[in-house]
Amino acid sequence: MHILILGAAGMVGRKLLDRLVKDGSLGGETISRLTLHDVVPPEAPAGTTIPVSLSASDFSDPGEAERLVAGRPDVIFHLAAIVSGEAEADFDKGYRINLDGTRRLYDAVRAIGEGYKPRFVFTSSVAVFGAPMPDPIPDEYLTAPLTSYGTQKAIGELLLSDYSRRGIFDGVGIRLPTICVRPGKPNKAASGFFSGIIREPLAGQEAVLPVSDQVRHWHASPRSAVGFLLHAATIDTKRLGDRRNLTMPGVGATVAEQIEALRRAAGDSAVARIRREPDPTIERIVSGWPRTFDARRALELGFKAEPDFDAIVRAHIEDELGGKVPA
Amino acid sequence: MHILILGAAGMVGRKLLDRLVKDGSLGGETISRLTLHDVVPPEAPAGTTIPVSLSASDFSDPGEAERLVAGRPDVIFHLAAIVSGEAEADFDKGYRINLDGTRRLYDAVRAIGEGYKPRFVFTSSVAVFGAPMPDPIPDEYLTAPLTSYGTQKAIGELLLSDYSRRGIFDGVGIRLPTICVRPGKPNKAASGFFSGIIREPLAGQEAVLPVSDQVRHWHASPRSAVGFLLHAATIDTKRLGDRRNLTMPGVGATVAEQIEALRRAAGDSAVARIRREPDPTIERIVSGWPRTFDARRALELGFKAEPDFDAIVRAHIEDELGGKVPA
Repeated sequence: MHILILGAAGMVGRKLLDRLVKDGSLGGETISRLTLHDVVPPEAPAGTTIPVSLSASDFSDPGEAERLVAGRPDVIFHLAAIVSGEAEADFDKGYRINLDGTRRLYDAVRAIGEGYKPRFVFTSSVAVFGAPMPDPIPDEYLTAPLTSYGTQKAIGELLLSDYSRRGIFDGVGIRLPTICVRPGKPNKAASGFFSGIIREPLAGQEAVLPVSDQVRHWHASPRSAVGFLLHAATIDTKRLGDRRNLTMPGVGATVAEQIEALRRAAGDSAVARIRREPDPTIERIVSGWPRTFDARRALELGFKAEPDFDAIVRAHIEDELGGKVPA
Repeated sequence: MHILILGAAGMVGRKLLDRLVKDGSLGGETISRLTLHDVVPPEAPAGTTIPVSLSASDFSDPGEAERLVAGRPDVIFHLAAIVSGEAEADFDKGYRINLDGTRRLYDAVRAIGEGYKPRFVFTSSVAVFGAPMPDPIPDEYLTAPLTSYGTQKAIGELLLSDYSRRGIFDGVGIRLPTICVRPGKPNKAASGFFSGIIREPLAGQEAVLPVSDQVRHWHASPRSAVGFLLHAATIDTKRLGDRRNLTMPGVGATVAEQIEALRRAAGDSAVARIRREPDPTIERIVSGWPRTFDARRALELGFKAEPDFDAIVRAHIEDELGGKVPA
């Protein structure tokens, strides 16, 4: 089985790669080749005998999509995107990468023809939803995004369904929750604090909480995100019918609930490292985000997230801290 | 006020034009110029002193969108599209005209800049919805089309909202019900019988009914369709917020109710001209269509449809038959 990962240098891409290399197979089939692509050169995985091709380019450039699928990968994981803030700041770049690039990939698969019909896993986002929204948001709720990023993802979903319906590829679109706890350094994303208030205290560092304790949001661990991708790559898509895009399950937790989970895992001293510093701008941005989902279809189809925020904290401690909670 | 109509040679386009010429104004502003475009040469309206420019081309050709908006029309009515059956049969043509062409128009407006911000009225379709669907379909229901045409319209809607949110133009997307009674000759569209079973008997002709009496569908007269377009062109869009696409109101009627309305208007002899000839193919196609809508937002925003199917029959008799019901 030949697997192509677009966006292989990103956090989720690297974790997916690690898992594929560790497993050596996907859905019972041995992985015979990995093609890793990103706009920056992706790192080759260590300790594997699977042949790996690395490539770095702007996949929306003319000819790139064709080049990337020319090797006829059996499974394509499309994780590449301009993130929300940049797609909002740079209209042309966002539409070029997130919409035109994605469509070029779809069309490159179509252009091959000759019975070539890969599994195409597209990472979408809960940003396809926009206020006003019910809480929880059901699977049949209107996708009415309030950002260009969300618009581009919603269009990617529509095309994925139509191309799948027409037999061009076998697509599954998954709307990822906010990934928490993101490993690594704090970043400037408006959502950064959701991870920061767990990650930094566990690392003995101070974290800033810019919003109220009552803010509720939808989370899944990096480990669950990888699980979603693998399940999307292997599920019998007959079970999906024509609706190829699924809101992934997650944990709906308030900031207060996040903090209590941190306390249970690492005690009062960890919680004491969270400094409240209200930021009206971030508070306002976050207030427009979806809170929780009734992700019934995905659950029925076997997608699995953590049962509660404690499990998300535990996953971080196991996967990033070697299972050890610092004193 | 300069008005551009794309798709001006179509049935709805011609009726819109007739109304604009008759009124001489739109939203209280005198119409100073009309630009009419279609893939076939549109007819110049008779009896008007308004300067009219006519043009015929494929608006998705490179440079055409820019040419069409170069005169900076204040209102753009975009009615041009490849219809459902053709978009399904010809993948490339459907995407080229319905998606790329529409996006080129949007981008041509953006390219002008300099504060140019026209009202952009986009005709969408209830084909953005696909089974399974509730009955009636609420305004917040997921757009999950089951045709390439519906996909292309749903994408046009998403782009319309995003471009409007970003201040590129002031867009309103309207999802038209099935237009009934369509004047003219019977056509081969699967939906043709909805009009045929009224139009042909009123013209003393036999009509074929290929589906069960219990089939329910969503209708509005050509007169209402023009009303929707005019209201979309003049409404205060602050009232719409960021959700720029609206399901238009209509009349949900079963075929049996249509037939009873015909009987009330023209008697048993007219009804006797309907010949039942079940067609499993058409029955199957129609069974996948939406039935009725709870078009609450559009009604609250002042869009008006007929109150019942009798009014739709009456509109046809008044507008197409000079008010006379044949004996």
